[in-house]
Amino acid sequence: MKFSFKNDYSEGCHPNILQALLQYNLDQQAGYGEDEYSLKAKELIKAKINKTDSDVYLVSGGTQANLIVISSVLKPYQCAISASTGHILNNETGAIEATGHKILSIETEDGKLKPSDIIPVLENHSNVPHQVMPKLVYISNSTELGTIYQAKELEELSTFCKQNRLYLFMDGARLGHGLTSEISDLTLEKVAELTDIFYLGGTKNGALIGEAIVINNPALQEDFAFNIKQKGALLAKGRLLGIQFLELMKNDLYFDLAKHANQQAMKIKHALQEKGVKFLSDTYTNQIFPILSNELIQVLSESFEFFVWKKIDEEFSAIRLITSWSTSDEAVNQFIEILKKEL
Amino acid sequence: MKFSFKNDYSEGCHPNILQALLQYNLDQQAGYGEDEYSLKAKELIKAKINKTDSDVYLVSGGTQANLIVISSVLKPYQCAISASTGHILNNETGAIEATGHKILSIETEDGKLKPSDIIPVLENHSNVPHQVMPKLVYISNSTELGTIYQAKELEELSTFCKQNRLYLFMDGARLGHGLTSEISDLTLEKVAELTDIFYLGGTKNGALIGEAIVINNPALQEDFAFNIKQKGALLAKGRLLGIQFLELMKNDLYFDLAKHANQQAMKIKHALQEKGVKFLSDTYTNQIFPILSNELIQVLSESFEFFVWKKIDEEFSAIRLITSWSTSDEAVNQFIEILKKEL
Amino acid sequence: MKFSFKNDYSEGCHPNILQALLQYNLDQQAGYGEDEYSLKAKELIKAKINKTDSDVYLVSGGTQANLIVISSVLKPYQCAISASTGHILNNETGAIEATGHKILSIETEDGKLKPSDIIPVLENHSNVPHQVMPKLVYISNSTELGTIYQAKELEELSTFCKQNRLYLFMDGARLGHGLTSEISDLTLEKVAELTDIFYLGGTKNGALIGEAIVINNPALQEDFAFNIKQKGALLAKGRLLGIQFLELMKNDLYFDLAKHANQQAMKIKHALQEKGVKFLSDTYTNQIFPILSNELIQVLSESFEFFVWKKIDEEFSAIRLITSWSTSDEAVNQFIEILKKEL
Amino acid sequence: MKFSFKNDYSEGCHPNILQALLQYNLDQQAGYGEDEYSLKAKELIKAKINKTDSDVYLVSGGTQANLIVISSVLKPYQCAISASTGHILNNETGAIEATGHKILSIETEDGKLKPSDIIPVLENHSNVPHQVMPKLVYISNSTELGTIYQAKELEELSTFCKQNRLYLFMDGARLGHGLTSEISDLTLEKVAELTDIFYLGGTKNGALIGEAIVINNPALQEDFAFNIKQKGALLAKGRLLGIQFLELMKNDLYFDLAKHANQQAMKIKHALQEKGVKFLSDTYTNQIFPILSNELIQVLSESFEFFVWKKIDEEFSAIRLITSWSTSDEAVNQFIEILKKEL
Repeated sequence: MKFSFKNDYSEGCHPNILQALLQYNLDQQAGYGEDEYSLKAKELIKAKINKTDSDVYLVSGGTQANLIVISSVLKPYQCAISASTGHILNNETGAIEATGHKILSIETEDGKLKPSDIIPVLENHSNVPHQVMPKLVYISNSTELGTIYQAKELEELSTFCKQNRLYLFMDGARLGHGLTSEISDLTLEKVAELTDIFYLGGTKNGALIGEAIVINNPALQEDFAFNIKQKGALLAKGRLLGIQFLELMKNDLYFDLAKHANQQAMKIKHALQEKGVKFLSDTYTNQIFPILSNELIQVLSESFEFFVWKKIDEEFSAIRLITSWSTSDEAVNQFIEILKKEL
Repeated sequence: MKFSFKNDYSEGCHPNILQALLQYNLDQQAGYGEDEYSLKAKELIKAKINKTDSDVYLVSGGTQANLIVISSVLKPYQCAISASTGHILNNETGAIEATGHKILSIETEDGKLKPSDIIPVLENHSNVPHQVMPKLVYISNSTELGTIYQAKELEELSTFCKQNRLYLFMDGARLGHGLTSEISDLTLEKVAELTDIFYLGGTKNGALIGEAIVINNPALQEDFAFNIKQKGALLAKGRLLGIQFLELMKNDLYFDLAKHANQQAMKIKHALQEKGVKFLSDTYTNQIFPILSNELIQVLSESFEFFVWKKIDEEFSAIRLITSWSTSDEAVNQFIEILKKEL
Repeated sequence: MKFSFKNDYSEGCHPNILQALLQYNLDQQAGYGEDEYSLKAKELIKAKINKTDSDVYLVSGGTQANLIVISSVLKPYQCAISASTGHILNNETGAIEATGHKILSIETEDGKLKPSDIIPVLENHSNVPHQVMPKLVYISNSTELGTIYQAKELEELSTFCKQNRLYLFMDGARLGHGLTSEISDLTLEKVAELTDIFYLGGTKNGALIGEAIVINNPALQEDFAFNIKQKGALLAKGRLLGIQFLELMKNDLYFDLAKHANQQAMKIKHALQEKGVKFLSDTYTNQIFPILSNELIQVLSESFEFFVWKKIDEEFSAIRLITSWSTSDEAVNQFIEILKKEL
Repeated sequence: MKFSFKNDYSEGCHPNILQALLQYNLDQQAGYGEDEYSLKAKELIKAKINKTDSDVYLVSGGTQANLIVISSVLKPYQCAISASTGHILNNETGAIEATGHKILSIETEDGKLKPSDIIPVLENHSNVPHQVMPKLVYISNSTELGTIYQAKELEELSTFCKQNRLYLFMDGARLGHGLTSEISDLTLEKVAELTDIFYLGGTKNGALIGEAIVINNPALQEDFAFNIKQKGALLAKGRLLGIQFLELMKNDLYFDLAKHANQQAMKIKHALQEKGVKFLSDTYTNQIFPILSNELIQVLSESFEFFVWKKIDEEFSAIRLITSWSTSDEAVNQFIEILKKEL
């Protein structure tokens, strides 16, 4: 079978997690997130962000996290703002709109939002009460294009949001990858300080399922659990989420796994760069978008699975390669070897 | 620690499931339910119901299954009908109404719906277009009170629904327990034949998470997957659901686990009956509701956890005991022993 | 043609309104409720309730008012409480649920809610976060059964709601009739003081369309206009609503019209009482529910239209008679004459 | 007071309508659209479109019509497609999204959609089930930019929609103006033949309120009235809508009024063209967008009200002038006089 670079959720989970599931399997626990593993995992997360007054909730997946957060935070006439590449705009089957809320889309170069991107949107939505009221800024880190926010960028965006009474919400489906990128100067603590709400993605970073929603703004904390239950996201056996995050948070396994994924991608990137290959965007996380000849793509696809992302011209296309916590040196080396032979 | 009879989701999952998770852990698989385990599990389920034209979808939990099914089946002005004890009415934080649909409540003795219960509701909702249109009948088997539908009862209800252009939807969070009850003459095949849609509950019968939605009515099958994604229920690692149902369906483990739970409850029930204890309702599944003196309840609660369900009078209350796939003989025997000593 | 006692919206509107529509017809005005008539009408209403800090919005009908108010006030997981006879429960095609909110139903004798009715509902909804959170108490005055709230009853209910952090919302589709009932000791000013939000119904009291929503609780006022627009209720020619309420509020025409309707109903009631006729409920507004022999009902129906409301036994049924601002003495006298002849 | 060219809903209604309201005022009629005026008006409309099997419903306003139509036609996971200038995208406070449906936006030159605009949107939404399913094409005639669809354009769009299983819905808030444009070769009958559903706008063409929704596709007709009631749009005194459309449809008053509005706009347009003034778009309906010097705009604004629509450069801006059924020759002539004097 061909090795797949299609995404970072092709494998199961980190062995530590399975080990813990086995170990605790027959312990009787309270249901619905009141189990001791969930409680401990939440404490660990709060310790890591150094904010004891934040609230943490564990849910199963990213679309679920996004729709629960956004629908719980906005009033019926308020809307979200997102880069046009945002996951909520393109890849969630209208999940946000299904809860009643519009998303305003902003074209960007790199999948990131800056205050200057948002200002014209606010200006164009001032015809009260005939237009939706922009109220939440949705960003992802790392983004859907593999790019990341640096500390200064997030600070500026956070300040802008506060000045304009906008909530700042970070989709962290790949937050581990964003923060452990070799060029990132942003920390988890800083993310918690600068956002109203964000989540730590587990599904794409070594868990079977699981995203940890962290609510930093006290005004958004009240009664949040109701929203989780109402959207069908409160697992009876919350232990499944608790055990996973407990393992991921212990000894920073979460960050080690993300760093591994990033490093494997960077190895391939450097090999390509050495050969003068160009990229669709300049990424430092576990997603890379090299532009290759259709001929080379054909050769690679005989041994590997990946997505052809975008046609560049008649001869060249960009492909997307995603590495994961589990991508082996063997697979990476084999890929590089073929590259070197062909380029 | 005290043994808990509080519910059937206190433990992890059946060891076979953990074993399979370990075994397949590093196999790369397609995401979003296209993994080979999910595909096989669905085939197994269709084979068991002997309906190759049914569609099967795997989701995480009962509230999620209920809200996806009901919101996908009804038009905006249509509503569901449920016994007043129905899970969707009392225990799902308005999840159904949050998707825009009213639920009409019917008082019953035993948590079950009969045609004669539904007729007056239809008659009282004939003022077109000023009232919601009843369109779906929601039932549970076993019910929230531990009672079950017999084949003849389900046949009559199914016929009535067809005659009145109502969809029949069975919540099967405890379907295993219902079908393996010592008095049940209903089969899984019959359930599939008589309902438009139903689900096989995994969470309360040995899985970590998981309910298998089975759509028998072809008119309700089209595009169903969109609804699962939109509600945040499509797991990236669908393998987690697939592997579990594969194990549960193999060699009828699913039914063996439910039968075990039922038998443990029946042992306690018989011990109580021998001592002349009365019950709130006459159940033959894994839920029993004995009426005990407050004094005895106090004694039992020193060694066991359970819910005090309903105050009967100054001296007596009904308690709820739930057994699970994992309830040991030891726990049951110890409970009976205390009973015998005290009664 | 037979005269109809079927409802209080069978005719057009009070002639003063048509006169004003003619008079102002070609004046150019700002759209969307910013016309000078709407502004003046709102000032008049605020003056009458003696609360300059209340906000007033004019919309077209009762279902529209109910769904806008309730959906704007509640968070997604919160619900309304209503008497089982409430208009929102039975006669609005699930309009409230369509905005995502459950309504909890309480059986009552007379269509009115008392604190003692609500207490058990609150107690039965304390399983956080597995149940909806009761947050708004919906009442009507006069009720759907023609009964009314006295000052003391509304005070007790208001106090109870404040103590329990519940909003109190009065559906005033027939508020004129409630307040001008011969037995009412409640005033419009008192209603504004004791409720968080209420509306003055125009449609059933001499307007073509129109309900004036009054928001007394400052916490519910912010951005309310957005909700009106979003639900399709903001008329481009808001003048149509403004002119009507301006005429109705001038010189208390609103109350005179309601009083007239009540008096016509009371005339018939007294004539029936003199003959020993019993009533389904003891009402003092423009709805009466006399219990008559089927034979007499047959005779009356040859000359008048009305609804047969409820079968009492084989021989007797209750009918519903509704009078309006426009019901003539002639119609009333003719009805009484037939009664006297037949009884 | 200055004469206003701000919009076409500044005045009341055509005098015939007020006359009819007076004439029928005290006739008792059935409620909720069952009055004889509504029934006759619907018959008149069906006769004019020469489609007896279409269904007609009368509602109050455009946003209301749009949200009812779109939410009743789409399944939860389906979405609408609109030109980026569409009223539903910019001017309805997220009313469509509030019913759960996304709108995909397409940039256009002239506010009109062509098959070639839609094809790439369909191609970009083929990742089943991870994206919304495009299902309804929303167009306006005349558009928000004053442009119109010719017969051939609508035919091509209609054919394309049928081939792609898309519904075609025409917002006809200004349908009278579109069809009576001096360059239009489209007829009302043709509109009914080529669309699945459309509406005839009354509010912007001489009525106080009112849009007549016409459902041509039989598959969309079933139970439609429930949606109207549920969204709070079913007026108790439906006669108010019925009487208005009866008057508008009689002797083609509807088209005469629209033609008048168009002609008044064209007079101003021609006067401007004679002076060499350029326009933002080339319109032949009651909206024109001349580009004038800021100086001239200042002078005009001393005598007239209108919106400054778009800044062109430091010296010039486009203004929007809208004429109505009621715009007098006097106002038009005075405006032209000032223009001639200043240009």
